[in-house]
Amino acid sequence: MMTIPPLDRSLAPALKTRIDGKTKPLGALGRLESLALQLGLIQKSLSPSIRAPHILVCAGDHGAAKAGVSAYPQEVTWQMVENFLAGGAAINVFARQNDARLVVVDAGVAHEFGPRENLVDKKVGAGGTANYLEDPAMSEAQCRQALASGAELVRGIAASGCNTLGFGEMGIGNTASASLLTHCLSGLPLAEVVGRGTGLDDAGLVRKRALLEQALTAWPERPPISHLPLREGKAGKGSPRIGVAEAGEDALRVLARFGGFEIAMLAGAMLAAAEAGMVLLIDGFIVTSAFLVAHRLAPTLLDYAVFSHRSQESGHRLQLDWLGASPLLDLDLRLGEGTGAALALPLLRAACAFVNEMASFESAGVAEKL
Amino acid sequence: MMTIPPLDRSLAPALKTRIDGKTKPLGALGRLESLALQLGLIQKSLSPSIRAPHILVCAGDHGAAKAGVSAYPQEVTWQMVENFLAGGAAINVFARQNDARLVVVDAGVAHEFGPRENLVDKKVGAGGTANYLEDPAMSEAQCRQALASGAELVRGIAASGCNTLGFGEMGIGNTASASLLTHCLSGLPLAEVVGRGTGLDDAGLVRKRALLEQALTAWPERPPISHLPLREGKAGKGSPRIGVAEAGEDALRVLARFGGFEIAMLAGAMLAAAEAGMVLLIDGFIVTSAFLVAHRLAPTLLDYAVFSHRSQESGHRLQLDWLGASPLLDLDLRLGEGTGAALALPLLRAACAFVNEMASFESAGVAEKL
Repeated sequence: MMTIPPLDRSLAPALKTRIDGKTKPLGALGRLESLALQLGLIQKSLSPSIRAPHILVCAGDHGAAKAGVSAYPQEVTWQMVENFLAGGAAINVFARQNDARLVVVDAGVAHEFGPRENLVDKKVGAGGTANYLEDPAMSEAQCRQALASGAELVRGIAASGCNTLGFGEMGIGNTASASLLTHCLSGLPLAEVVGRGTGLDDAGLVRKRALLEQALTAWPERPPISHLPLREGKAGKGSPRIGVAEAGEDALRVLARFGGFEIAMLAGAMLAAAEAGMVLLIDGFIVTSAFLVAHRLAPTLLDYAVFSHRSQESGHRLQLDWLGASPLLDLDLRLGEGTGAALALPLLRAACAFVNEMASFESAGVAEKL
Repeated sequence: MMTIPPLDRSLAPALKTRIDGKTKPLGALGRLESLALQLGLIQKSLSPSIRAPHILVCAGDHGAAKAGVSAYPQEVTWQMVENFLAGGAAINVFARQNDARLVVVDAGVAHEFGPRENLVDKKVGAGGTANYLEDPAMSEAQCRQALASGAELVRGIAASGCNTLGFGEMGIGNTASASLLTHCLSGLPLAEVVGRGTGLDDAGLVRKRALLEQALTAWPERPPISHLPLREGKAGKGSPRIGVAEAGEDALRVLARFGGFEIAMLAGAMLAAAEAGMVLLIDGFIVTSAFLVAHRLAPTLLDYAVFSHRSQESGHRLQLDWLGASPLLDLDLRLGEGTGAALALPLLRAACAFVNEMASFESAGVAEKL
């Protein structure tokens, strides 16, 4: 298990002084000010900056997809990966617009792509995960392999000079997986964290809820929902009942049972990104479910995370509230692919830019408050 | 009075088809989709684009500032204008970051700048407005001059190829002016639309409220609050009681009594921008008060407006609700200067980019919903 140090807050007073000295009323840049502080602390710098940002999109297929948890057929996963490779998906457009490098990973898509220039092959299982309505989605070994592959990928990205990493995913059926993970890790009621995904109608939603209840019932040995050990100074959800190591083991069991290869890979990637001192830009519902897993393994992960947006997928709001996270954007997005992360990049750049480029009251000769 | 045609909606079905054909679940880009539709309709194009965006910042001083309605001394207005000219203010930073050209206008700052390369001199009154606690802030002639100057400025900007204009302001005391305008034009209770501005403490807020009540009392001839003639299909605030022309005359009387030169100039600029078919990017509380004035003169202005953010200044939320407007960002900003407008530009570009650059289901060979 990786050790991720909590943020060293010793620079906080100097960062605060620098922010407060800028030619604006105290606090007038709102969320951009707290964001600048967080970025400065992560980067241990009074001059935070966004360098060589990447968006890591992991794709995988889900055995449960064929049971009817999605409005789209499973082939859409590989077809959308082809769309990523051809540059025609929303994430291509938003990554280009915001000068982010896109890395597309096959974590376990049920399709043979062959060697392709812009596709990273980290396939954990060639046919996607197993159907968790009957069996564990993946073996323990596959789960650890996916986590390790995600971490390895990120070490490579970090070596290229990247200090800000957005996370995205593609996988037909993966909102269902994310709902199960969220329920098992947070204790939020399953029915409340199951949503329409890519656009189920009312009947589809009822069916999805019933199938996911069935998936829970099919795994009577599941670990009890346990509370996280609390970080110092963080508002709690009750007292910690178990230690980090034990919570981590439980999280891995839940991940192996209900996860997707892409979700497991993202969780591993997040841990390695925080270990490398990167800023993590968390996307929507599915990426946040990967975050919930990784957060069990290392609760200090939260210090490194910026939540990019609040998805229209109903469970995402609940995940964010549970984490005590406030996202930067609220645009009713529900596309995934890391689109929210890419769209939030200009706000991270703005937070850095005001700290680095604005004049101070002193330097500009502007009078302060009466 | 300018005539601003309501949006020609004949392109709406074709735009909708184009948006819906993109490789994403229907509606999955949320607010960006409705924004793309609006931009396409304003520009009468299936390929909307943001060309040569400008941020127009008008600065002016307020006679009432010396009565104690602000936490900052009046000199800060001209000092901040100097800061704009030197490139050190937040709006300089955000305009640069987002490739927007900044135009700074002296609408009536109580300071002699002399000829300056990057400052547009449109001074309406050399000493700022009169104190509305005693007299009208400006004469009817000054009010019309400010509106005309704003319109003239925008015609020049439009001629340079700009199709998207953000509005910003600087003026110590101008949240007070904005509160009075908002109350008189919307009927929202004065106490609710008076806020802390640049950072008044509790005692300062109580004093500001009392002074503004006094300003209302000092003008017994003020026109009754009247409802706007409603646009077809727009949710109403009750029945229209007067026609546009009469509402416009009343709005101008209110503007002359309580307005700032910068607010009047912005109102004129907005009308000319909509007349030129530009996209209007509306900033915070003060700019929205200018919008309320302009909207009285031409209710169709709303079709051309994109509300960039929801300010932390309490009255702004009420203004937006009253207009039925949903802003793009909600970052607790309360700085003015057009900073929210500049920060929203990447979202406008994203809305255009997905329409222009994303593949369609057909072109990418991706299966549609089951």
